[in-house]
Amino acid sequence: MQRVPGEALGQRQAAVRQAMAGLGVDSLLVTSLPNVFYLTGHEGSAGVALLTATRSQLYVDPRYAEAVAQLQASPAAPPGLEVRIVPGSYDQAIVDGLIDLGVTRVGVEAGHLTVARHRWFLSALAQAAPTVELVATEGLLEDARAVKDTHEIALLRQSCLGLTAVAEAAFRAVRAGATEREVAGAIEQGLRSGGYARPAFDTIVGSGPNGALPHYRAGERRLERGDLVVLDFGGVLDGYCSDLTRTVAVGEANAKAREVYAAVLAAQQAGIEAVRPGIPASAVDAAARQELAQRGFGDAFTHGTGHGLGIDVHELPRVSRARSDSSAPEGLLRPGMVVTIEPGAYLPGWGGVRIEDDVLVTENGYEVLTSVTRELLTL
Amino acid sequence: MQRVPGEALGQRQAAVRQAMAGLGVDSLLVTSLPNVFYLTGHEGSAGVALLTATRSQLYVDPRYAEAVAQLQASPAAPPGLEVRIVPGSYDQAIVDGLIDLGVTRVGVEAGHLTVARHRWFLSALAQAAPTVELVATEGLLEDARAVKDTHEIALLRQSCLGLTAVAEAAFRAVRAGATEREVAGAIEQGLRSGGYARPAFDTIVGSGPNGALPHYRAGERRLERGDLVVLDFGGVLDGYCSDLTRTVAVGEANAKAREVYAAVLAAQQAGIEAVRPGIPASAVDAAARQELAQRGFGDAFTHGTGHGLGIDVHELPRVSRARSDSSAPEGLLRPGMVVTIEPGAYLPGWGGVRIEDDVLVTENGYEVLTSVTRELLTL
Repeated sequence: MQRVPGEALGQRQAAVRQAMAGLGVDSLLVTSLPNVFYLTGHEGSAGVALLTATRSQLYVDPRYAEAVAQLQASPAAPPGLEVRIVPGSYDQAIVDGLIDLGVTRVGVEAGHLTVARHRWFLSALAQAAPTVELVATEGLLEDARAVKDTHEIALLRQSCLGLTAVAEAAFRAVRAGATEREVAGAIEQGLRSGGYARPAFDTIVGSGPNGALPHYRAGERRLERGDLVVLDFGGVLDGYCSDLTRTVAVGEANAKAREVYAAVLAAQQAGIEAVRPGIPASAVDAAARQELAQRGFGDAFTHGTGHGLGIDVHELPRVSRARSDSSAPEGLLRPGMVVTIEPGAYLPGWGGVRIEDDVLVTENGYEVLTSVTRELLTL
Repeated sequence: MQRVPGEALGQRQAAVRQAMAGLGVDSLLVTSLPNVFYLTGHEGSAGVALLTATRSQLYVDPRYAEAVAQLQASPAAPPGLEVRIVPGSYDQAIVDGLIDLGVTRVGVEAGHLTVARHRWFLSALAQAAPTVELVATEGLLEDARAVKDTHEIALLRQSCLGLTAVAEAAFRAVRAGATEREVAGAIEQGLRSGGYARPAFDTIVGSGPNGALPHYRAGERRLERGDLVVLDFGGVLDGYCSDLTRTVAVGEANAKAREVYAAVLAAQQAGIEAVRPGIPASAVDAAARQELAQRGFGDAFTHGTGHGLGIDVHELPRVSRARSDSSAPEGLLRPGMVVTIEPGAYLPGWGGVRIEDDVLVTENGYEVLTSVTRELLTL
């Protein structure tokens, strides 16, 4: 596995410490696993990071002792990371750690910490360290993660480019008579051959009428001549996600299929071309949405245009309608953000079309990181 | 996809309503997706259920409108379920729904609801409906889900039995020179051929020294003659998870490998035979742990003996050491619970052994649902 150098992790921690200072907290308890990975390089199903102005700690249970020892011995070790192996309760160990560190204003991740766990911490601290206060923070790490550093861009570039071969494997598997599940199997085998650790999400192969369900997965339906088939897949390579959708025709594409495809392709192109730093992400959504509306498919586009992509397959920024129910100012696109552009049109009973690429926001505009033909393929 | 009949979902809802009455709440806001699936049959990446003493509602966004319409038209439709399609913010729609229903004591799932979302609800309700109170509940659905109904046992039985063929595919792929990733690919292809919607978790193929990392996944290492290889995999079939581990030898198994294997197998057998209703789950853990300790591998067993299995691959009950830091009385095993029994021994630098089966707690004892030889195979 290719890893981000420890030095870069140190820079991330420094940036987070600045944000912590701005919020007036002397420490940050990081309980979201993708955020723990982002800050420490530890990838596991459990683990907690604790950051103060001068120290960084990682709490893991004995299952990860060996993996963390290997991490610490490698160039990917974050400078100065103190590892605590926790044989029993994580949360008791964290309370002990907070007391030991002598912190008093502890930021918690309100968007991840559950009400139950928060209550437990409050009650344990009230007994053991009444001067320690928990301060709800929101989106601190997520905002940082939305703008990728050069190491992340390099990893995302590889994750996206690798999908070219996976798409070819998918196209080879599409034929009348094959089941959706068989096509999905070919895609996932392609991901594995390409070195991806796992699919980034449940692979979607939606054929014929199933294409009208945007979050369909893959079932026993056999592809039929004349079907459109929505293929939506991605992989996790070295910790970073890619996400691609193509819609292909089986044997032949009739006039209606071509019309819907052309509308979605035009919308996607409009969305991609709208990408540049300094504009709200909702402007990208509006560009794609307007194109579909003009062609009479406005109501058939039932989701947002895209989402940020990185350690999580869905992260900031949202690329969708401006929220009418939010008074918070919307963030602007910034160089280093990576987003999907994936408009679609879904006609219940008939089927659907979605076309998706992954796009880097550059200093001047955009760069498409995925590289697969967007012509309507008839297979 | 095979689905639980709507009538059975109605019975689950009735059981939850009893628990709600016991807690003095007139409604329950279900935000955990596996719990939403358990109560309504809706399987998606978003959706919220709202239960009162007489009504049940499901909130989904337009992406799921078509899928939910199909559910509602099928025998899997929960009786009386009201579907609300939410074009904008889920949480605003839920606040409106609470006001519309006229409820005043709303249970929330404190183990899932985040601090941020909880705060948003509190603030929105303070403005719009100051008489509505949010009441933290914990484990209400999880406790119910720990004991499977007959439909769930039938689905789990199928999910577990299907792993026999997957294990055979895995064993065929194990040979000196193959990479761990190739073996994992064969396992996942086997899962797909077996009709599983997806792996239940990241497939683990840990060869040689990598076997010492209990939560390793699969990498580029090539299997070598004399390696032990830990194969840990499972699938989701009709919404229900299975989970199996076998450790096999490549070409030959030396005396040490046989010794560690025999110790873990004896521990697993002791754990399985300890399973019966009415005893604490920690007694099962103790039985397995004692066997390993007696053979000198007590310190090499660094995790719990097992976990419940169902809609989630990790659910109640925990099968591990009694928590010394908890004063809550430990739950007892009950007929209808399904647990994994998976002791292991991990020797850093050398490798590891883990053996895992899925076990149903019956009226009188246990029934092993997985069916794969536990002899040490040399492949």
